[in-house]
Amino acid sequence: MSNSFGKIFRLTTFGESHGVAVGGIVDGMPSGIAIDEDFIQQQLNRRRPGQSSITTPRDEKDKVSLLSGTMNGISTGTPIAFSVSNTNQHSSDYDNIADIFRPSHADYTYTEKYGIRDHRGGGRSSARETIARVVGGALATLFTQKYGIRIRAYTSSVGNVSLNKDYTELNLDNIDNNIVRCPDEETAKQMIDEITNARNNLDSIGGMITCVITGAPVGLGEPCFDKLQALLAHAMFSIGAVKGFEYGSGFAGTHLRGSVHNDIFYTDNGRVRTRTNNSGGIQGGISNGEDIYFRVAFKPTATILVEQPTINKQHEDVRTIVKGRHDPCVVPRAVPIVEAMAQMVIADAILQNRTTRA
Amino acid sequence: MSNSFGKIFRLTTFGESHGVAVGGIVDGMPSGIAIDEDFIQQQLNRRRPGQSSITTPRDEKDKVSLLSGTMNGISTGTPIAFSVSNTNQHSSDYDNIADIFRPSHADYTYTEKYGIRDHRGGGRSSARETIARVVGGALATLFTQKYGIRIRAYTSSVGNVSLNKDYTELNLDNIDNNIVRCPDEETAKQMIDEITNARNNLDSIGGMITCVITGAPVGLGEPCFDKLQALLAHAMFSIGAVKGFEYGSGFAGTHLRGSVHNDIFYTDNGRVRTRTNNSGGIQGGISNGEDIYFRVAFKPTATILVEQPTINKQHEDVRTIVKGRHDPCVVPRAVPIVEAMAQMVIADAILQNRTTRA
Amino acid sequence: MSNSFGKIFRLTTFGESHGVAVGGIVDGMPSGIAIDEDFIQQQLNRRRPGQSSITTPRDEKDKVSLLSGTMNGISTGTPIAFSVSNTNQHSSDYDNIADIFRPSHADYTYTEKYGIRDHRGGGRSSARETIARVVGGALATLFTQKYGIRIRAYTSSVGNVSLNKDYTELNLDNIDNNIVRCPDEETAKQMIDEITNARNNLDSIGGMITCVITGAPVGLGEPCFDKLQALLAHAMFSIGAVKGFEYGSGFAGTHLRGSVHNDIFYTDNGRVRTRTNNSGGIQGGISNGEDIYFRVAFKPTATILVEQPTINKQHEDVRTIVKGRHDPCVVPRAVPIVEAMAQMVIADAILQNRTTRA
Amino acid sequence: MSNSFGKIFRLTTFGESHGVAVGGIVDGMPSGIAIDEDFIQQQLNRRRPGQSSITTPRDEKDKVSLLSGTMNGISTGTPIAFSVSNTNQHSSDYDNIADIFRPSHADYTYTEKYGIRDHRGGGRSSARETIARVVGGALATLFTQKYGIRIRAYTSSVGNVSLNKDYTELNLDNIDNNIVRCPDEETAKQMIDEITNARNNLDSIGGMITCVITGAPVGLGEPCFDKLQALLAHAMFSIGAVKGFEYGSGFAGTHLRGSVHNDIFYTDNGRVRTRTNNSGGIQGGISNGEDIYFRVAFKPTATILVEQPTINKQHEDVRTIVKGRHDPCVVPRAVPIVEAMAQMVIADAILQNRTTRA
Repeated sequence: MSNSFGKIFRLTTFGESHGVAVGGIVDGMPSGIAIDEDFIQQQLNRRRPGQSSITTPRDEKDKVSLLSGTMNGISTGTPIAFSVSNTNQHSSDYDNIADIFRPSHADYTYTEKYGIRDHRGGGRSSARETIARVVGGALATLFTQKYGIRIRAYTSSVGNVSLNKDYTELNLDNIDNNIVRCPDEETAKQMIDEITNARNNLDSIGGMITCVITGAPVGLGEPCFDKLQALLAHAMFSIGAVKGFEYGSGFAGTHLRGSVHNDIFYTDNGRVRTRTNNSGGIQGGISNGEDIYFRVAFKPTATILVEQPTINKQHEDVRTIVKGRHDPCVVPRAVPIVEAMAQMVIADAILQNRTTRA
Repeated sequence: MSNSFGKIFRLTTFGESHGVAVGGIVDGMPSGIAIDEDFIQQQLNRRRPGQSSITTPRDEKDKVSLLSGTMNGISTGTPIAFSVSNTNQHSSDYDNIADIFRPSHADYTYTEKYGIRDHRGGGRSSARETIARVVGGALATLFTQKYGIRIRAYTSSVGNVSLNKDYTELNLDNIDNNIVRCPDEETAKQMIDEITNARNNLDSIGGMITCVITGAPVGLGEPCFDKLQALLAHAMFSIGAVKGFEYGSGFAGTHLRGSVHNDIFYTDNGRVRTRTNNSGGIQGGISNGEDIYFRVAFKPTATILVEQPTINKQHEDVRTIVKGRHDPCVVPRAVPIVEAMAQMVIADAILQNRTTRA
Repeated sequence: MSNSFGKIFRLTTFGESHGVAVGGIVDGMPSGIAIDEDFIQQQLNRRRPGQSSITTPRDEKDKVSLLSGTMNGISTGTPIAFSVSNTNQHSSDYDNIADIFRPSHADYTYTEKYGIRDHRGGGRSSARETIARVVGGALATLFTQKYGIRIRAYTSSVGNVSLNKDYTELNLDNIDNNIVRCPDEETAKQMIDEITNARNNLDSIGGMITCVITGAPVGLGEPCFDKLQALLAHAMFSIGAVKGFEYGSGFAGTHLRGSVHNDIFYTDNGRVRTRTNNSGGIQGGISNGEDIYFRVAFKPTATILVEQPTINKQHEDVRTIVKGRHDPCVVPRAVPIVEAMAQMVIADAILQNRTTRA
Repeated sequence: MSNSFGKIFRLTTFGESHGVAVGGIVDGMPSGIAIDEDFIQQQLNRRRPGQSSITTPRDEKDKVSLLSGTMNGISTGTPIAFSVSNTNQHSSDYDNIADIFRPSHADYTYTEKYGIRDHRGGGRSSARETIARVVGGALATLFTQKYGIRIRAYTSSVGNVSLNKDYTELNLDNIDNNIVRCPDEETAKQMIDEITNARNNLDSIGGMITCVITGAPVGLGEPCFDKLQALLAHAMFSIGAVKGFEYGSGFAGTHLRGSVHNDIFYTDNGRVRTRTNNSGGIQGGISNGEDIYFRVAFKPTATILVEQPTINKQHEDVRTIVKGRHDPCVVPRAVPIVEAMAQMVIADAILQNRTTRA
């Protein structure tokens, strides 16, 4: 088990879906930061189940409690612990799958690795684990915003509905204006239809999230093994359902020639800029001051209400009959999680970068 | 700077392109492994510049020397240090770019981050740094092969030439039969043409590598932050020119519904298998015993012989006139590097997994 | 801030003296261990304030709650989080020292390092922080006891009262028979008098703890930088009031010649033993199967009720008038803390040692 | 194996006594430091065998080569690798002990832990491993001296000859004036006699080193687990023959009452000082601006020329007949090693401390 993320700004998390609570500890939060608990709760609310017609009906308030690390609302440099109680659990929903390995779930691998598995609500492999990431990311945000850094993610595709616009053409302040978190209203409606359609078929659907980091200073990232893109990729692939990650020109860039792909430097009022940004704001593993942007692919939710063949612990053929409450598409609620992980990467990179020069 | 990779099996590297040597230290190599130096050299030869008509003409022998960690050819459990001398350097080739920020290179970001930069041959950001990765990977291979694990990568696209076959349809023993390292001869020829064409235009071209890990046991990967895919992605994005990574169904999987995407479990002569493998051999961040496969996107080489506008340290407009010797496409020589990084991830995961149970 | 301890078996802690709670997360607890909550509580009770006439009268129940990581009382391999509420706080006792730097306390250094300090009850630098260590150690014990390992510490001196017997002459089962935790009744009485006398003078007194680890297998410790003695020393010096550490022959061994000091090997019914144990059970940084023993020096409690001159935040001369409730000697309650830290070192060393050989 | 030390400023070492070379890599050296190779060599010369009549006659030049990380003599922020060739090896001296477990050596524990052991010259457990520490420490010094920090160690006792003066009464510039590295000439002579006497008896003798750090700023050390004293203790106990460590009042402080032991704060021309320094310059795990001082105990060299009974790999009774060349007392040559380890702790603490505040 490796339940810590980050080197200087470091989140350690705990908790199972149907246990007492989920939460974590942020170690390395710099001292002197105003800890806005409302802001943290607000981020959690964006991740909250039951928030709309296209998410799981599991209704949890997910009220966060901070347990340490502040005095009079200011961070003291000591670890900030937090927890969120689990309240709306239907553990009995899972009785019938205690011995069953659900397809494309962690049931089989956890059982084989640990010899024991908490089957209730997916245990540790539940998406409930991401609550701690959102809180960690919110704390990171309180630090990074002092640098003028903003990190915003949005749903850029659901199933076969794609947002065919570059982030520069979108108003990112509109992301939370609709329940699917796509800043283009027209596309958002189609996405919602796509998800609703999947759900009505007792099925699920995948999608993609685009994330944009603006205002990052030059110099973030630690070559050669902790290049900024490597840390961002690590962060994103640690999220449950992620299957792909690309930044800047990404996979499409492989078709280009260097003469087209290279980002030409120029000076704009004394500031070094590039005319294009195929580099995605990162060169040589280090941020170059341009926008950092990347795309994350999410698979369709593994839990579906359609009956499926599978096997049980005794390796006998059985069929799944899932009763739990699940998201037909993880993407809308994953938006704040992608942002949170990116925030923690950037906060950590800022702190590491302070140790670079004599 | 973060020049170490891995937690238990841990490689630390050093060296600039035009310095005395490049090399590294592998700490955590288990004791009792026969260290086949010929095998290590053979892997390095696969990465060696000047190996074919489509790679850089820089001709380095890249002869590895092991400095410690073995007795009578057997690993003793102590660190294995190694170095490779730099011999065929034309540092003067770089005099004219000492003050110039080459487009899409690390020149600008290194200068800003460190306040100083070794411009000769790209210094630390040179692809020569990957020599140490190949040696580290070769050492890892000597360990993982005891488990029957094999890791093989191949070129699956160059520019617009794509290998439209699944890895299961290919004979992976043919990978090294041609200079572009594509196991399909017909496609290989087209890829070579694509690279030759780019080079003849003083230009460069991108491409993709597919990697397949067979024989991995169930249980590798450490949720929730060190999921196996997160470690693999981290490893791949630490390689210079990588812009994208996907495993299993990847980006294409986002278009699917769960009922189609889910991998159905069944029992095959007592062994748990899945009928499809959209999971790419990993479920819940842990290997499930199926083949692990992933795809890596490489951008076109930033260094091209075409003249380009850019700026210098004084932020004045200048033009690049590159004299160095470079690969028109990094992909063929990146194949052993992708394999090496994957080998180290797997070796480390095996060792970490030993600590799981009471 | 660095609030994590251990590499594989890893405790991360949080909490201030007068905050909501203190607690932590143990990551890396192997799966399949019966988690005996009564045992954990029992260890906490040994550390509990208000337990006897020679400890602080602050009366805290220190009831531990486990929040995650177990199913049906068995560890699942996921992180085990726990917390202990702070209930008996008299924060107003500290109002008068909010701006005062108490002599030999962390007040001044925390203020300078972090720019802010939680003055209530010492904040993070309070001995209350050790609650999490005791819980972490109790969890480690549940693992190490499976190997037949026992770790027992006892008070071996208080002020000028020393226990002039080797640990081999003592019955370590008697340690908890008296309130000072010295297994020799006669000496224990003198120690209690020494502490009582200091307290009656509104003063405090130092002392030493001896710790003995029996049953440790050969092979624990990771040269060259994580030698077993280095990990034990690190662990002990991370405890607040510790000023010295020696193992085996320790400081006294510096007076000896090699011919006297060397531990001669022999075979005892097939088992390799040494005739003496000046090595303290560790050779070359690795346990050799003999008893591991060491001694830890604790300074007199810095907080005393005698008025002392000092300065305040404004660097003005002031006098301390301490109202808080404090131990006149930290040693009796530090016994379970020393054991706990040693337990975590050994648990971690066992897990690391599993990765040594091919 | 754990062959890395430090978190940000991080040394990784390699090499066996009779292998090709010993050396290491320093990762995290800040950029912009003038790398004075003569200074590094000078520190190595202080550690060099064969330097005087009271050290081993093994005569090694120990010439260091830097392999990377600098340009025009300035650190670039990339890893600095270095190696020192092994030249004066008499491996055949060790043929007769290939199968023998020398008393109080690492022979037995290495064999048991790794299943294989390089017996030639002690292999990895040889004191030759400390060469890399001295180079790492010299590099750290080039950084820390910019802060006005000085670290000086000296021999404070050999066998029964003790230097009965406080460091404040000594002229630390005289340390290297004699071969035993004691700044008091009279005591130095007695120490040399003590060592000579032991050697003439084919025996060895232990001793102590005192180390003083002046000029350290307030704020170094990372509570609660990486208190400055914990990092220093870890560093010292990672040195082969160390058996004890105490800082400030140390073991003697356990006899004192708080009213005597507490260090009273006062202001001296605007600077916060303490009237006494029982705290050894560290309060709450953080440096307070006063001198940091500590004492390290070294056991007598295990290798002696007197014949001793022991066992061999087959667990048969045998007798040792040592032919190798060894120091009768490790202390004089350990002085630069103690300084080097302390330098690395301080360099790392400075860099970590930069991440404390918003």
